[in-house]
Amino acid sequence: MAQLETISEQKCFGGVQGFYRHRSAACGVDMRFAVYQPPSALEGARVPVVTFLSGLTCTEENFVVKAGAQRVASELGLMLVCPDVSPRGEEVADDEAYDLGQGAGFYLDATQAPWSPHYRMYSYVTEDLAAAVSQNFPADTARQGIFGHSMGGHGALTLHLKHPDVYRSVSAFAPIVAPMCCPWGEKALTAYLGPDREPWRDYDTTELIKSRPSQATLLIDQGAADTFLEGQLKPELLVEACEAAGQHVDLRMQPGYDHSYYFIQSFVEDHLRHHASVLAATS
Amino acid sequence: MAQLETISEQKCFGGVQGFYRHRSAACGVDMRFAVYQPPSALEGARVPVVTFLSGLTCTEENFVVKAGAQRVASELGLMLVCPDVSPRGEEVADDEAYDLGQGAGFYLDATQAPWSPHYRMYSYVTEDLAAAVSQNFPADTARQGIFGHSMGGHGALTLHLKHPDVYRSVSAFAPIVAPMCCPWGEKALTAYLGPDREPWRDYDTTELIKSRPSQATLLIDQGAADTFLEGQLKPELLVEACEAAGQHVDLRMQPGYDHSYYFIQSFVEDHLRHHASVLAATS
Repeated sequence: MAQLETISEQKCFGGVQGFYRHRSAACGVDMRFAVYQPPSALEGARVPVVTFLSGLTCTEENFVVKAGAQRVASELGLMLVCPDVSPRGEEVADDEAYDLGQGAGFYLDATQAPWSPHYRMYSYVTEDLAAAVSQNFPADTARQGIFGHSMGGHGALTLHLKHPDVYRSVSAFAPIVAPMCCPWGEKALTAYLGPDREPWRDYDTTELIKSRPSQATLLIDQGAADTFLEGQLKPELLVEACEAAGQHVDLRMQPGYDHSYYFIQSFVEDHLRHHASVLAATS
Repeated sequence: MAQLETISEQKCFGGVQGFYRHRSAACGVDMRFAVYQPPSALEGARVPVVTFLSGLTCTEENFVVKAGAQRVASELGLMLVCPDVSPRGEEVADDEAYDLGQGAGFYLDATQAPWSPHYRMYSYVTEDLAAAVSQNFPADTARQGIFGHSMGGHGALTLHLKHPDVYRSVSAFAPIVAPMCCPWGEKALTAYLGPDREPWRDYDTTELIKSRPSQATLLIDQGAADTFLEGQLKPELLVEACEAAGQHVDLRMQPGYDHSYYFIQSFVEDHLRHHASVLAATS
């Protein structure tokens, strides 16, 4: 069991917002993550866990500081887990662009140099982070959900579709739904997985839905004034794929909202209530 | 009428979170401030205004990003106004310390060199900011409240006591209540007002309450685990002054909470409901 270092713990809405550091076997470096424990967890209960995956340029802090999620998690008795979005450090490959390298892990396991030694965020989230949470916090691991924003929405949707019995509830804010068909995704998948597009399918939500739809309803909020909507996000491709495969999806276009945390905080309560409802019904 | 420059406007909880810049006659430099307009303001209503004054090292952004206040303001139909905490710029005097100079205006009008040309945050908030808000936004200026954190709690309490007919409701998170009796205050008042302590009384809440208590109830939340509690904040001095003067005060000591925005966000809803309740009863 890897040792967990507590960076900080602060009381918030009757629970505790903490930041932690641990060694990741998958990434080969120390990783940071945040956990919010609701009051019920401090009183001895094992509580459902909802993991939030952030977007490009973020760290484990953005959602914690800006989303206003702790209030709702406190009320609903949900544990919130927020990992960093990539490995970091001097020994970790990087790129000057904001959409590749550190800050842009895309929740996949890279196979190409120079990325493959450390860029293994798929294994990190599903293995190392999962172990750290289950071993150090009062998590009811039979009741887990996952959600995320933009690149993290891509991560949440793909992780749910690959592990529907682990991440039983799923939602996303302005997700990248078809990385094989947008500039952000094509750039990252080429770099991390190589030019052969066949292995890309394993990390593309619209492709995964064709081969393995889940029983869950995908709750998606998308700002209609999001400047990335047409060029990068393309939620219509998700809806098409869901209709073809019989996957339930609830895409809510939100007039006037952009890609920011002002958008996320406006609808985070709906998402957490969605997760709590699904997880409460999970036996 | 000074021209208002819009820096950004983003939809949030059905309203608009904006950041603006304008020339301040009092400070002699451009100043930035934030305004949240609730949905009712966008639909044509004149709405009550609650101004939040931030603490040391903050800007107009901290409360906007971290407090989670827009959700409640949206529901209650309150406009939120957040100024910066000091004048800034190359021509503005500064100090290396975090608790003097830029980022530490203490909501007073300085009389001493090198501070007096620009450090006039008392006049800025009560005159320039007030004018910018009333002239550019649908503010019901007969119904205004004020609150703040730490140095900004000091600002809110003193501005209310000096202008009880303008700032009719008041509250504070972990306020400096007796700057004449704490290191932060003694340092700032000496620098900005000079060594003669007599003019200091005009900016000390416990002193103002002796001479001019208000009819309002001062709602104060204070974290019991706040590391600044004993050395700087000393809420017991406020309670003593209130008891002696017949000033209503509701001091709530919150076990386990520190001085951070995790504390503020946990209780901001209570504060906004307090302001809305007082302002709704204001004719």
